Amino acid sequence: MRALRYDGRLWLNPDEPAPIPAADEALLRVRFAGICHTDLELSHGYMDFQGILGHEFVADVIEGPGLTPGTRVVGEINIACGQCDLCRRGMPSQCRNRSTLGIRGHPGTFADLMRLPVRNLIPVPDSVPDTAAVFTEPLAAALQVPATCPISPTDRVVLIGAGKLGLLCAQVLKLTGCDLTVIVRADKPLSLCQQWGIRTIDTRQNPDWLRAYGPQSADVVVDCTGNAEGFALALDVVRPRGAIVLKSTYTDLPTANLTRVVVDEVRVIGSRCGPFDAALRLMESGLVDVESLIVAEYPLAEAERAFAHAAERGVLKVLLRP
Amino acid sequence: MRALRYDGRLWLNPDEPAPIPAADEALLRVRFAGICHTDLELSHGYMDFQGILGHEFVADVIEGPGLTPGTRVVGEINIACGQCDLCRRGMPSQCRNRSTLGIRGHPGTFADLMRLPVRNLIPVPDSVPDTAAVFTEPLAAALQVPATCPISPTDRVVLIGAGKLGLLCAQVLKLTGCDLTVIVRADKPLSLCQQWGIRTIDTRQNPDWLRAYGPQSADVVVDCTGNAEGFALALDVVRPRGAIVLKSTYTDLPTANLTRVVVDEVRVIGSRCGPFDAALRLMESGLVDVESLIVAEYPLAEAERAFAHAAERGVLKVLLRP
Repeated sequence: MRALRYDGRLWLNPDEPAPIPAADEALLRVRFAGICHTDLELSHGYMDFQGILGHEFVADVIEGPGLTPGTRVVGEINIACGQCDLCRRGMPSQCRNRSTLGIRGHPGTFADLMRLPVRNLIPVPDSVPDTAAVFTEPLAAALQVPATCPISPTDRVVLIGAGKLGLLCAQVLKLTGCDLTVIVRADKPLSLCQQWGIRTIDTRQNPDWLRAYGPQSADVVVDCTGNAEGFALALDVVRPRGAIVLKSTYTDLPTANLTRVVVDEVRVIGSRCGPFDAALRLMESGLVDVESLIVAEYPLAEAERAFAHAAERGVLKVLLRP
Repeated sequence: MRALRYDGRLWLNPDEPAPIPAADEALLRVRFAGICHTDLELSHGYMDFQGILGHEFVADVIEGPGLTPGTRVVGEINIACGQCDLCRRGMPSQCRNRSTLGIRGHPGTFADLMRLPVRNLIPVPDSVPDTAAVFTEPLAAALQVPATCPISPTDRVVLIGAGKLGLLCAQVLKLTGCDLTVIVRADKPLSLCQQWGIRTIDTRQNPDWLRAYGPQSADVVVDCTGNAEGFALALDVVRPRGAIVLKSTYTDLPTANLTRVVVDEVRVIGSRCGPFDAALRLMESGLVDVESLIVAEYPLAEAERAFAHAAERGVLKVLLRP
C-alpha cells in the first residue's frame, strides 16, 4: 500500500507493507485524513518520530472482531493498556503504557490502510459527512477545554492562537454561552469567526487592544499559540485567580513568568485529547461548523505537496484522500 | 522611632518619623516581627522596594477607631480598596489598587511603631503567645495551599523546598490526612519533620529517591522552591492530571516545560496570601507547631545582624523584637 512516512525525511512509500492487525484490532481503509500541527512538528523531528504519520481520520472497517465490514468509523488515538493506575482511574488517554496513533509507537493514518484496536473505534452517524467526521479528533481536543476547566456562562473568555485547533476551541467555547473574544491577526480566522457570530479583535487594526479590553480582566484565557509570547500575553489578559488553559505543545523550552502565576494566583491548566463521543454529538446536531476550516484536499499520491501547503503560514485544514 | 529601611542599602534609621495613622487606621506598637524570604529578596532590589521592610508581626494597639488600647493584634498585609471588581468579588488580597505592608506602598513592621487599617486587624487569642502569633501571616499563606487546591485524604502529596514556608505548608498538609512526603536536604527540616511525624526523604541519603517513590505518581506537588529546577522536579513527580501548587516567587524568569504541562494535562496553581482567621484557629488549638522554626531572636537595634543571619543558607525563622 501507499503510506506517508517520516524517517528523517518525509516521503511517500508506494510499497509499504499492509498492516497486520493484532487479535484485538480492526483493519481499516482510510477515507479521509487531516493534517494537524503536530504532524508538521513530527515531520521536523519532534519526539524523534519515525514511521507513518497521521492521527486524524475517518475510515471504513474492512474486518475486525465483532465489527460489520463497511462500518464508517473514527477512532481514539491513544491506545491504552487498560491495566495501569491511570487506566484504572478512568484516564485511558493518559495511560502510562500508551502508544498513540501516528505519534508514538503505532503507525498512523496517512496511508491506504491502517489498524487500530476495536475498542478505540466509534461509528460515525450517517448524517455526519466524511469531511466533517475527519475533524472528530481535533474537535474532541477542543472539547477537552471545558472538560478540564469548567467555563461558566458568565465568564469573560479570551482565545489566542486562532489557528486550526483554536477555531474549533472558539466554537466549543461559544456553546457555553460565555462572553467570548477571539484574538485574530489574519483574514481567514476573522471571516470565519464573523460567519459564526463570534466576537473578534483584529490585532492588525487594534495593536493596543488590551487597554480597551482591560488588562488582567478575563476569567479564562485559552492559549492555542504554543509559544512563550502567547503565554506571556495570556498572563497579561487573565485576571487574578483566573485560569489559562494551554492547548498547544511548544517547540522549545519556553520561559514563563511563574512569579506572576504565584502573585496573581493564576491556574494554568494543560489540556490535550478529549471526548470523541461528544465531538460526534456536536457535529450530528449541527452545532459546530468544521468543514469551513478545510482549505484543500489532496490525493494521498500528492501527500508531500499537501504537507508543504499545510505548513504555509495561516493555512487551516488540509485533507488527504487515499 | 527606629526603623529598618531599604533604600538601595539596608540600614537602621534611629530617627524615622513616627507613623501618622489615617482616619481608618490604627497606630500599633510592634511586639515581634519575623523575617521572611520576601524581605531578603526586597533587600536585594526585588520589586524596586524602598522604605521600611517587614510584614510578619504581632503588635499592641496604641489607638484606633473602635479599638481598645492594649489589644494584641495581627494584621492582613494586603490593604484593599474595597471598591474594585476583585474586592467586590470577595478577593481583597488580589485588590487591583492594593498596597501591601512592607512590600508595596505601605511602610512595614521592622520598626517600633506601625500603622494599618483597623479592618485589617485581628485580635490574637490569649492562649497564642507572641512567638507563635508572629507566624500568623506565613501560616495563613500555607493554608492557601488547600484553599486553592483541595487536597483529598487519599492524595499522595509531595512537598519540595522545605524551608521556612515549606515547613508550615507541610504541617498544614499533614492535617488533611493525605499521604504526605517532604523532600529534605538539610538536618533541621529533617529533624523537625521527624518531630512532627511527617515522612521525609533525605535526598543526601537517597539521590535516586524518585525511582523508589515513583516518577510522575504524586497527585499533588507543593513547590516551595521558587526556582526553575524545583518546577522541573515537580513535573517529574506529579502524575498526569495532577496538580502543582506554586508557593514561592522566582528571582529570575524561569524556563518551564509547558509542553509537559499540556501533554500530561497538569494543573499549575499559583498560591499566595491566605486566611488569617484559620491560621489563628490552628495555633489556638495546638494543631501546628510554629515556634520550633525560630532559630534566633534579635533586638531591633541589631536588625542588620538579624538580616545577615536570616540570609544564611538553611536558616529558618529569625525574629526581631523592638
